[in-house]
Amino acid sequence: MFIDHIGIAVDDLEEAVETYEKLLNGKCYKREVVEDQKVETAFFEAGQSKVELLGATDPDSVIAKYVAKKGEGMHHLAFEVDDIHAELDRLRNEGFTVLNDEPSHGADNKLVAFVHPKDNHGVLVELCQSVEE
Amino acid sequence: MFIDHIGIAVDDLEEAVETYEKLLNGKCYKREVVEDQKVETAFFEAGQSKVELLGATDPDSVIAKYVAKKGEGMHHLAFEVDDIHAELDRLRNEGFTVLNDEPSHGADNKLVAFVHPKDNHGVLVELCQSVEE
Repeated sequence: MFIDHIGIAVDDLEEAVETYEKLLNGKCYKREVVEDQKVETAFFEAGQSKVELLGATDPDSVIAKYVAKKGEGMHHLAFEVDDIHAELDRLRNEGFTVLNDEPSHGADNKLVAFVHPKDNHGVLVELCQSVEE
Repeated sequence: MFIDHIGIAVDDLEEAVETYEKLLNGKCYKREVVEDQKVETAFFEAGQSKVELLGATDPDSVIAKYVAKKGEGMHHLAFEVDDIHAELDRLRNEGFTVLNDEPSHGADNKLVAFVHPKDNHGVLVELCQSVEE
């Protein structure tokens, strides 16, 4: 289990990409729209992990609502695991609230599922598992 | 530049350590008090990066104030760099607000300095450089 990425909710994705290219001294290497979440993502490399900027593509997006309520900032913390189904079972057995019955297809060719922030001292935790393209 | 750790502000460090041992399926490998920040830290391994839980040791601590204002959750995002002085100069030249004139000694044998969240779309960014013990 390692930190796959840290997801950051932003208001203006173009502006944020420009900022993070300066901050991280490197180029955004991938942009990807996740239609069913109404989100556009922008990825940066940071060693073994990535920084994922998240901008809403629609005012109805969960990211638009998050930014309206809490402001821009860190939105979720994602851990890569080898077997997401086994790991979700393990966490359910430990009493964590998994927000998805089944993992769904997220950005970056991953199966993803989320653990409720109330169980993790305020941190929305994502588990992800890379899948073949 | 890679993600050294993600800092999570918590209300009750003992309780949070127990939770994160379950979540990450691994033991806290280090606890350390940072006196001048009035904070106790607890570290977990997650690949190349670490999860750092931060609990206040005094009601005056910046972490106590953070939790009172914003609730528990992700507090800062830390990147390890090879030369913190050069990197801070680079960021100042790019127009970022560095919150420390000089790096200070933080937890985990590091020189640390912070970049203002207003410059990073709401993310308090820490730069750190490992130093010899």
